[in-house]
Amino acid sequence: MTIDPLNDIPDIADIHLAHARIRSQVLRTPVLTSPSLDEYLGCSLFCKCENLQRTGAFKFRGASNAVKLLEESGIQGDVATHSSGNHGAALALAARLAGRTAHVVMPSNSSVLKVEAVRGFGGEVHFCEPTHESRRAGLEKLVAAGHIPVHPYDEAAIIAGQGTAALELEQDVPELEQLVTPLGGGGLISGTVIATRAWGVDVFGVEPEGAADTVASLEAGRIVDDYRPDTIADGLRAIVGQRNFRVIRENVREVLTVDDREIREAMVLFWRHCRLLIEPSSATVIAALRRYPDRFAGRKVGAILSGGNIHPADWVTLTGDGSPG
Amino acid sequence: MTIDPLNDIPDIADIHLAHARIRSQVLRTPVLTSPSLDEYLGCSLFCKCENLQRTGAFKFRGASNAVKLLEESGIQGDVATHSSGNHGAALALAARLAGRTAHVVMPSNSSVLKVEAVRGFGGEVHFCEPTHESRRAGLEKLVAAGHIPVHPYDEAAIIAGQGTAALELEQDVPELEQLVTPLGGGGLISGTVIATRAWGVDVFGVEPEGAADTVASLEAGRIVDDYRPDTIADGLRAIVGQRNFRVIRENVREVLTVDDREIREAMVLFWRHCRLLIEPSSATVIAALRRYPDRFAGRKVGAILSGGNIHPADWVTLTGDGSPG
Repeated sequence: MTIDPLNDIPDIADIHLAHARIRSQVLRTPVLTSPSLDEYLGCSLFCKCENLQRTGAFKFRGASNAVKLLEESGIQGDVATHSSGNHGAALALAARLAGRTAHVVMPSNSSVLKVEAVRGFGGEVHFCEPTHESRRAGLEKLVAAGHIPVHPYDEAAIIAGQGTAALELEQDVPELEQLVTPLGGGGLISGTVIATRAWGVDVFGVEPEGAADTVASLEAGRIVDDYRPDTIADGLRAIVGQRNFRVIRENVREVLTVDDREIREAMVLFWRHCRLLIEPSSATVIAALRRYPDRFAGRKVGAILSGGNIHPADWVTLTGDGSPG
Repeated sequence: MTIDPLNDIPDIADIHLAHARIRSQVLRTPVLTSPSLDEYLGCSLFCKCENLQRTGAFKFRGASNAVKLLEESGIQGDVATHSSGNHGAALALAARLAGRTAHVVMPSNSSVLKVEAVRGFGGEVHFCEPTHESRRAGLEKLVAAGHIPVHPYDEAAIIAGQGTAALELEQDVPELEQLVTPLGGGGLISGTVIATRAWGVDVFGVEPEGAADTVASLEAGRIVDDYRPDTIADGLRAIVGQRNFRVIRENVREVLTVDDREIREAMVLFWRHCRLLIEPSSATVIAALRRYPDRFAGRKVGAILSGGNIHPADWVTLTGDGSPG
């Protein structure tokens, strides 16, 4: 697999190679079950806990694969990206572990938590105006300075890395019938469907109603990029990538949508049953299982919990779920 | 193994039997690692996540074993206990799964969260005055009515059940050199040392300074029960049990103490590195690794995280750790 030729899409072999490449530094995250949540949802749920992954999100898989591919290819230099979220922190750590620096363009209105995460993992933050143009311009400047761009999702190495979560899930729970993942830019779900084609599970994606650009794009038959995201699921606001869209269109069973109220309720539901805090993007999959019982009733369902980077105080504010005292 | 003859103490065979008996209804909890926390603490830490166990605590293991032993022995009837915490909820669920009811004597000042947990799992709550005498009297009344008492920790079936967590940890991480558990009444640690004797790991217990009755008892050579607990670790306020004390005295390498400030800091530390909320009792083990680096430096250390039953809002209040925004 080469780094990033246009339209290059990984296959199952690339995902196995990615897994061999990254598994020494990526956590093999646990698969959790909850009999009480199963009873509530009416299906048998197996949660792949990428919220417990290093840097708190699956993004570390793709970033690790991308940086390790640079190592293998003998390509020197620092890496660069733009990110207001988990990809920036993931790339920062992956780069540091390889003795490199990640330069991360972040909008000036990014949360302190996210900025501190990037810096905490050794990344260098470059602030820009909170617009797409400013982010792109910031990244172009870094690339012009010789840094190597690593896209958050529309890149073969990233897609292959994200697919390793599903690979592990297949090894751990081969009897699964369905798999559900959040859908933002499409890195996770495209890696997932490539990893699981031979396995034969049905893969569902979930988008927030306020950022359902992929649903719109599937209807239109082309990527619809003239939209303004409006959702609490901050990890899913990106526009679906070109490679990702191709893979999704051909392989994903269905893209479901949930609204912000359902996402909030799913966060509380998951804490009550499983004692885990998950960020809104992760909670979309739990919300979808609850909203679309006809799809999942009685089935063995895998869910990839994408991330857990939400401070407990923010969790309380967002969900409105106070202590019963 | 019989139900509860005086001074009966389980052996390793009882723990294996307990595991075979309960494993269909008890979660095999994951063992988590964190390279960044290891770097911070200077040891290799393997966390057995009983905070993700059903009912949110290891207590479900012992309660399941006790109730299933009743089934095996053909003993009919409901069960009863007094508990202001996790044992009550655990016994409630274990009983319900066996078609029985658990009657739980709870002090009238118990937290709503704990009361709702017992009721949520089908238990019946009997309020009493918040004194030892009133709790004991309440339980005696239930026993007089024909219900079977299940002690939270000073009972062979309970000790054997709690030991199954260490049994799983040994299977998953056989290379461990040391094991650290919280120490309240002593159910978890006594089961742990019995389970691990042949394994040869050194077992450490951790008490809050404000409830260090076992340290005092070890010094005195007898159980010191004239003390008033004062600690945020509400799961560790009990006085060490008789069976438990005997096992601890003969087998535990050392009982360490930590103060409430260290417990609070450990809760925050653990969230930052591992993205898990743990209750104060669990955090004592992390606090001990930090306070006594000479004991653990460079070693492979197992830690049993006993429970995760703390509401995120209470976690924020207790730790004082606010969102960075």
